[in-house]
Amino acid sequence: MAASKRNIIVGQSGGPTSVINSSLAGVYKTAKERGFHKVYGMLHGIQGFLDEQYVDLSTQIHSDMDIELLKRTPSAFLGSCRFKLPEIHEDTDTYEKIFQILDKLDIEAFIYIGGNDSMDTIKKLSDYAIIKGHSQKFLGVPKTIDNDLALTDHTPGFGSAAKYIAASTKEVIRDALGLTYNKEMITVIEVMGRNAGWLTGATALARTEECDGPDLIYLPEILFDMEKFEKKVTELLKKKHSIVIAVSEGIKTADGKYVCELSGGADYVDAFGHKQLQGTAAYLAGHLGAVIGCKTRSIEFSTLQRSASHMASRVDVNEAFMVGGAAVKAADEGDSGKMVVIDRVSDDPYMSAAGIYDVHRIANNEKLVPRTWVNKEGNYVTQEFINYIEPLIQGDYQPFMVNGLPQHLVLNKK
Amino acid sequence: MAASKRNIIVGQSGGPTSVINSSLAGVYKTAKERGFHKVYGMLHGIQGFLDEQYVDLSTQIHSDMDIELLKRTPSAFLGSCRFKLPEIHEDTDTYEKIFQILDKLDIEAFIYIGGNDSMDTIKKLSDYAIIKGHSQKFLGVPKTIDNDLALTDHTPGFGSAAKYIAASTKEVIRDALGLTYNKEMITVIEVMGRNAGWLTGATALARTEECDGPDLIYLPEILFDMEKFEKKVTELLKKKHSIVIAVSEGIKTADGKYVCELSGGADYVDAFGHKQLQGTAAYLAGHLGAVIGCKTRSIEFSTLQRSASHMASRVDVNEAFMVGGAAVKAADEGDSGKMVVIDRVSDDPYMSAAGIYDVHRIANNEKLVPRTWVNKEGNYVTQEFINYIEPLIQGDYQPFMVNGLPQHLVLNKK
Repeated sequence: MAASKRNIIVGQSGGPTSVINSSLAGVYKTAKERGFHKVYGMLHGIQGFLDEQYVDLSTQIHSDMDIELLKRTPSAFLGSCRFKLPEIHEDTDTYEKIFQILDKLDIEAFIYIGGNDSMDTIKKLSDYAIIKGHSQKFLGVPKTIDNDLALTDHTPGFGSAAKYIAASTKEVIRDALGLTYNKEMITVIEVMGRNAGWLTGATALARTEECDGPDLIYLPEILFDMEKFEKKVTELLKKKHSIVIAVSEGIKTADGKYVCELSGGADYVDAFGHKQLQGTAAYLAGHLGAVIGCKTRSIEFSTLQRSASHMASRVDVNEAFMVGGAAVKAADEGDSGKMVVIDRVSDDPYMSAAGIYDVHRIANNEKLVPRTWVNKEGNYVTQEFINYIEPLIQGDYQPFMVNGLPQHLVLNKK
Repeated sequence: MAASKRNIIVGQSGGPTSVINSSLAGVYKTAKERGFHKVYGMLHGIQGFLDEQYVDLSTQIHSDMDIELLKRTPSAFLGSCRFKLPEIHEDTDTYEKIFQILDKLDIEAFIYIGGNDSMDTIKKLSDYAIIKGHSQKFLGVPKTIDNDLALTDHTPGFGSAAKYIAASTKEVIRDALGLTYNKEMITVIEVMGRNAGWLTGATALARTEECDGPDLIYLPEILFDMEKFEKKVTELLKKKHSIVIAVSEGIKTADGKYVCELSGGADYVDAFGHKQLQGTAAYLAGHLGAVIGCKTRSIEFSTLQRSASHMASRVDVNEAFMVGGAAVKAADEGDSGKMVVIDRVSDDPYMSAAGIYDVHRIANNEKLVPRTWVNKEGNYVTQEFINYIEPLIQGDYQPFMVNGLPQHLVLNKK
């Protein structure tokens, strides 16, 4: 049996990123190089797997060119899910079913590409394997634009989202400057990040030799004070006509309310109990317009920020590929219940390497922006913050353009 | 006097585009090549000009490299305005002031880069020059992402906006597909276009060999029927889990109301009496969520679609440059009261050339999508529409990347 048991399965879970498929490509390529027989892809993560939805990836990836195309394809190629495994003591049937399918497919290693919630899946499955004496290895590959995973220096997907956000912020600032003459305009940009302000802080990268960058930045780590905010904006308008403010979707006031809730939004709650946030910028723009009486506008970077692979960072694409491969290597060498992390080896020049950590130390432990990386007033990030992010947005990974548009690799279901 | 009167002035007006500065670069380069002495740039169009706000462009553009950087810079380099000149019979003082400044600067030619409203400025100034016997020439250069100018095959700025919209639509569709397993999700994308649906129709370009494209497209040219819409979406949800709908910000119901007004938005009115539209997609997503009971989300491409020069079309950048130069040539050869247009010389291979038309035939005359280029049901564009747009999004014009971000040329006010 041992000789035949050389198959591997990989899945993707949680919110998409621009480079989640680069990790998938890294898993595929390394698995093939290390002599795995079949590389399966589960469709829509563990949820689809439970319905026995999977494909043999060799029917999808036919060449090195396909691998390069996959690295340039945003959103989960295999489909994603938001599915929380039950606690082991609550429901062993689900676990038994999973291991039955794994055995049937001769799976030796199970690789899951995802964020905090996905690492919970790796933890539970590896625990169950140990408890029941199953031999399969379970490895996690980090993925999230939010950069809120502990222990890894940063997460794959973050750098590309930060690059897109910074580039778009520069473009929005130029747009606003061109339009304001003898009149004032306030632009409020809304950036993703429920509890962690990494992405919102990335707008500060727009401060370059030819661009002021945003004037104010509000992260969810700092309580939002509406009065101070109005005062600050009013002050700034005395000095310049065009004010650009970046806010996280997740900023909250002292009474614990999301700012977007002040407008009556935020109804939808997902499977993990997370409120869907939207409308923070629109609310603040409307509010400032009413209080200050000048033109205001709001811009939500929305899902574009997590799927704009046409603006991917080369550092990010390569690191995403690296951690995918490192997970296969770790599994092949006998590790389980671990997540691959990115260690920053050096800042200047920037260098990184794959490391590995026990997934029990990682799951459901959000990494927030340290208070010392936000200025005293709580309305901008510090130079340390910028130094940390800057290396992660470097270099391009040009899309393959076909007929004027970026081409993607998509699942062939035939 | 004649020998010294070889100066030229150029201004930019109206909403920005990704390539409006490529036209400015074309004006500058051609003016220099044709022996104009000074090339002035008016700041914030005719409004700033009236305040004697202008720069000598040789203090801003120092090299061919700067010209290339300018071509890659979105939004009006010189600043824009929305300023309507009074009717000549109502207020001759304003006109006298303009011509005094022109005389003082020894201006021979006045080039204005703008949309419908800007061509009105060219018309009035050239009329006034004729009435009063002034020798200056007034030429218009078309510019608008909306593609709603008559007589020109299409407008500079449209192709790049269409390319960004189509590419982003592909990315949004991939994002949605990855997230939907055994559950339904409706994504409503809002695209700019008050009366003309050219940009919204451009989402159809996302229909490629590996992407279905949007499922439904609603242009402002067709009255929006909420009941039919709900029925159509419900039907589609029986066939597929993820539905993506593109709507113009300007769609209206049979009673003449903008859909975004149904939610109580649309308060701000600009200097030309245009209502500011926003919230159409959010309203429809909320409405469908309530009626159908599935997850919905809304995405506004917002100002990003007109300033994303990082996704500019090479055809568009080159044509914008060409029409800028052609305006200078026409003025130099004695034309006035005219706008440069783009003539489509051939479809396959696509070829275009600069033509010239009397601005009296152009101003305030909106070009809408013909009814025959929309399908019978009024919920998609036809192949003719796609054939018309496709050549305009071809080719890239890569940004100059500095420290991971697109670099821009900005006004040096020292």
